[in-house]
Amino acid sequence: MNSEDGRRRVVIEDPTPAIDGGRFPIKRTIGDLVTVEVDAFSDGHDLLSCALLFRKEEETAPNWRSVPMTALGNDRWRGVFPAAELGRYRYSFLAWVDAFRTWVRDLEKRVAAGQDCRVDFLIGADFVEEAARRATGDDSTALARHAAVLREGAVSPTPLPPDLLSLMATHGDRRFAVHHDPGLAVVVDRERARFSTWYELFPRSTGGPGRHGTLRDVAERLPYVAAMGFDVLYLPPIHPIGHDHRKGRNNSVTAGPNDPGSPWAIGSSEGGHTGLHPALGTFDDLHRLIQAAQEHSIELALDLALQCSPDHPYVQQHPEWFRRRPDGTVQYAENPPKKYEDIYPFDFESESFGELWEELRRVVLFWIEHGVRIFRVDNPHTKPFPFWEWLIGEIKRVYPDVIFLAEAFTRPKVMNRLAKLGFSQSYTYFTWRNTREELTRYFTDLATPQMREFFRPNLWPNTPDILPEYLQLGGRPAFAARLVMAATLGASYGIYGPAFELCENTPVASGKEEYLDSEKYQHRPHTLDELDRPESLRRLIARMNRVRRENPALQRDEALRFHPVSNDQLIAYSKSSLDGNNVVLVIVNLDPHHAHSGWVELPLGELGLAADQPYQVHDLLSDARYLWHGARNFVELHPEVVPAHLFRLRRRVRTERDFEYFL
Amino acid sequence: MNSEDGRRRVVIEDPTPAIDGGRFPIKRTIGDLVTVEVDAFSDGHDLLSCALLFRKEEETAPNWRSVPMTALGNDRWRGVFPAAELGRYRYSFLAWVDAFRTWVRDLEKRVAAGQDCRVDFLIGADFVEEAARRATGDDSTALARHAAVLREGAVSPTPLPPDLLSLMATHGDRRFAVHHDPGLAVVVDRERARFSTWYELFPRSTGGPGRHGTLRDVAERLPYVAAMGFDVLYLPPIHPIGHDHRKGRNNSVTAGPNDPGSPWAIGSSEGGHTGLHPALGTFDDLHRLIQAAQEHSIELALDLALQCSPDHPYVQQHPEWFRRRPDGTVQYAENPPKKYEDIYPFDFESESFGELWEELRRVVLFWIEHGVRIFRVDNPHTKPFPFWEWLIGEIKRVYPDVIFLAEAFTRPKVMNRLAKLGFSQSYTYFTWRNTREELTRYFTDLATPQMREFFRPNLWPNTPDILPEYLQLGGRPAFAARLVMAATLGASYGIYGPAFELCENTPVASGKEEYLDSEKYQHRPHTLDELDRPESLRRLIARMNRVRRENPALQRDEALRFHPVSNDQLIAYSKSSLDGNNVVLVIVNLDPHHAHSGWVELPLGELGLAADQPYQVHDLLSDARYLWHGARNFVELHPEVVPAHLFRLRRRVRTERDFEYFL
Repeated sequence: MNSEDGRRRVVIEDPTPAIDGGRFPIKRTIGDLVTVEVDAFSDGHDLLSCALLFRKEEETAPNWRSVPMTALGNDRWRGVFPAAELGRYRYSFLAWVDAFRTWVRDLEKRVAAGQDCRVDFLIGADFVEEAARRATGDDSTALARHAAVLREGAVSPTPLPPDLLSLMATHGDRRFAVHHDPGLAVVVDRERARFSTWYELFPRSTGGPGRHGTLRDVAERLPYVAAMGFDVLYLPPIHPIGHDHRKGRNNSVTAGPNDPGSPWAIGSSEGGHTGLHPALGTFDDLHRLIQAAQEHSIELALDLALQCSPDHPYVQQHPEWFRRRPDGTVQYAENPPKKYEDIYPFDFESESFGELWEELRRVVLFWIEHGVRIFRVDNPHTKPFPFWEWLIGEIKRVYPDVIFLAEAFTRPKVMNRLAKLGFSQSYTYFTWRNTREELTRYFTDLATPQMREFFRPNLWPNTPDILPEYLQLGGRPAFAARLVMAATLGASYGIYGPAFELCENTPVASGKEEYLDSEKYQHRPHTLDELDRPESLRRLIARMNRVRRENPALQRDEALRFHPVSNDQLIAYSKSSLDGNNVVLVIVNLDPHHAHSGWVELPLGELGLAADQPYQVHDLLSDARYLWHGARNFVELHPEVVPAHLFRLRRRVRTERDFEYFL
Repeated sequence: MNSEDGRRRVVIEDPTPAIDGGRFPIKRTIGDLVTVEVDAFSDGHDLLSCALLFRKEEETAPNWRSVPMTALGNDRWRGVFPAAELGRYRYSFLAWVDAFRTWVRDLEKRVAAGQDCRVDFLIGADFVEEAARRATGDDSTALARHAAVLREGAVSPTPLPPDLLSLMATHGDRRFAVHHDPGLAVVVDRERARFSTWYELFPRSTGGPGRHGTLRDVAERLPYVAAMGFDVLYLPPIHPIGHDHRKGRNNSVTAGPNDPGSPWAIGSSEGGHTGLHPALGTFDDLHRLIQAAQEHSIELALDLALQCSPDHPYVQQHPEWFRRRPDGTVQYAENPPKKYEDIYPFDFESESFGELWEELRRVVLFWIEHGVRIFRVDNPHTKPFPFWEWLIGEIKRVYPDVIFLAEAFTRPKVMNRLAKLGFSQSYTYFTWRNTREELTRYFTDLATPQMREFFRPNLWPNTPDILPEYLQLGGRPAFAARLVMAATLGASYGIYGPAFELCENTPVASGKEEYLDSEKYQHRPHTLDELDRPESLRRLIARMNRVRRENPALQRDEALRFHPVSNDQLIAYSKSSLDGNNVVLVIVNLDPHHAHSGWVELPLGELGLAADQPYQVHDLLSDARYLWHGARNFVELHPEVVPAHLFRLRRRVRTERDFEYFL
């Protein structure tokens, strides 16, 4: 027991938000307000004062900025600070028994009861005199003058002079203040970490018939991508591809002479994780692509797949980073009885793991120095958690604008851990949530106060690995429905194209989720004619993404609410902007084969609508406008047209001249 | 980053139960099982093993005992250890990637798929050889033999020999095991901390008319108390009472010459907190009282009121323990504008707080050495939390059988903090919860998994300070109803007698909760004739307490469930024993003035009853038995008889000879 600690009477506990008791930072984007609450109380009946302390992590501890916290009742306090800069903030709490404020409160009661307060004034004078000794300059002089007045009893009892109260708030006795230790942290990312629209394509498919696409071809594809409104263009690995055990078409174990191999089988004699596949072009081409993308407000995202093909240079240069089998061969990837002999995983239990970690950091920094700021991380759940926490921490300490998307489709606690330890965004189970009940339950879970503080969902209706059964069987209406839901249930979403917008829906075999003739293993050039096919969803996608840019409600995930519909093939939900002025109501027909109708029930008050006033629902996809009355309204959706309404709710406003319109 | 830590791939998190992330111990009573759960997982697809470690706190860390934990699915693990001894246990978790178990699992799949496993056997042989090097003696020899068999490939592939699996469970590789730090704690109390029945009386009232009662008189009152079935006899402070500013009858500011003063105004020239009021007798009398009580299975509880009268010896001997006012006087207790000039609080912010703490510990140890093991602590919420945590910790480290009851009627978070930091039992708001909704909400809150781990309610329908309005207005039926609820809603409860059993219900003034002519300020001798009045509740109390002793369901608070009744003047709830064999259903008429009837609805399955079988409800108060069918049954309660049913539920059992009875 420290000689002071016994006199520190205040308890500070249960700060919120907090991830695992503060073990991990919460997440915000720049410009957000960080609103935090905490319990603070002491024994007895004295009044407390409570301050919220905050600083950038790189600043040293004495440089806390301090804002007063407000008592909410029931010993709960709230404070707010702005997430003004990228990077990490630390924040903490300071609370103390405020003897002076307690004295003021009690004095008012004594005066009201007509008691003799002469001794009480002397007690107050002592407090103020002590404060005068702690203060300097004008404050000290002013406090000393107040103390003298109190000591003479020459003051009119209450209210006390406002400047005395404010001087005492600054110079009051905080000897026994309790500092909440070790405090908490918040990571402040740029806006794209929260609100982003991804398009994935295989660069080698952009070359036209018979020609390996290049980064220059990708640059020429940018107007097509930009016209659909995407702001992140994600490329699968662009490194040299291994030859040893290369996979052939449709994942066959032997490759034909012209088969290009999977881009995820990284490394050959031509280079490894810092190499560029020669057929894709040069680093100059990459720089030009990044530049050209920027001109379309598109950012390039690269793949980070930490594994090697058998002919990756690391295998020769760093045999200690791989596990050796008793027969002298290197251990390939396995999921027994399946064998993936074209992939060597790193051995993160190697004694040389430190050098391995450093090398992988060097790889990430290499691409950052080439202008890449977004990484989609392949299978992060098969590498150790401490590695990711270290790597992401190291990178973001220097480059706080870097975004990492975790491609982990695995057990919930593993996915959550990756998000907690630093991944900016996460793939989700959305891909397999199809019924109203599944979708409602899953997105209600993701929106719980606990989850949303660290887990930023990025919704993908398809990926090169996953053509879900719903898309296989539902055709174009299914693609349209999944698009609308991905784009509205998630502030971030992405599609793998052009397979998605062209509604490619043929699996490698019945009951399988892999694509037939997947681009992962063979050339699948997409011609401009093909991209222009009338059944392409690209116009709907463009419309959808414009609506996202224009409606702040769709740029955050916090205020998602599901609403009852009388037909369980229809799902209805709304999102609201932080200020409540922008409310979007989405209704989707989940059945790709039949029209469905039903009654939607809205909580009008929660959505800022009056129960007795008509309101307008403005369909941002079709531009149709309907006048709705009351909580229950009828909807009907035909899958072959557009299987969704995307309503902006508009309140009726009456001007001074009695002109009505809907805002 | 420690050179090993990067290779520790396992995460251990979210242990339950845990109070504030493990900051405070959970509570159990001796003989309980401590069942704990935790998340443990790693990256990838390897199997983990997980152990629960536990030890008495006084044992040093290497002496952990270890029991294996069971995987529950979804990365959750469960383990159990017995709370075999009084005192504190620490417990923790150890989890590791179990390479050998993973190898076994994968081998079985490879064998099933008909693969060539020769290299896999060599990998297994390496694991077993390494284990042989870690083991000693017979284990080492046996492991080496197994390794050789595997290396020769001469083993029939699967299943592997059971003794190999069990040897590897002991000697497998735990180099990178993760130890959950700093672990958690559980306080193991004796049973009375969980299940206790309290009777409070003023010793000075036991003397008969015109005579100050003594501890010998209290001893003579024991058969009366024992006949009602109480097992704790709690006496308000028995120390010398101050003369300075002594309060008179009905809390008047001036005492008459014969007014005895409040026992809570502790200390005079005759002694302080280690003194005995001369009129009560001698320490020999006290020892004899404790002895006599034990013979009735009753334990004596004393009051711990850490405050002084102005003429307490401490005031002269330790002026530094009190706050001084500017006019040189000592600061008395206040709740402005109210003044309590007969009470001087200790100044826990004194620079000499260390000596004050030590002295107060000496006081508690003094009474412990005189045979007292239960303390009812007066107003603990007006003394600092760090003091209580230190004091209770220090005392229970040496005397783990000591029980502290916190008399704190204050804000919820303050009450909770006191319970967390060590108080064994706590007064509650039961005293003011009267309607069905109030009672249901309050006791549902107390029974949440979080609360029940640290907060043991002790329910008091009255105290010397509190005669609730419900008792004032409801007369004898109200007292009976509150008795039944206190005795069944709480595994611990108490009454202040004989005011309670005699149904004294006159307040000092209308709208006040204080008793008229309260024993706190004047002599109120209770004659044996008075105690024998026919309207006394003592027979009901005796019956009630016998039922509590005979029904394990009423001895714990965990399995409390409320049940719907069609009349909201009736409240119904049940409690079950841990094994589910003892189920008690309580139905109380909350209206002391009118008979009420209604339909009670029971969740038969949860209570172990079959929906299609009749069952017996046996009223343990009236001994009546009824045959009930199905979930809904009719009840009617007349307040002037007994305003409650206290049913034991009895299942129908059919013997081999087709004889039916109810168990």
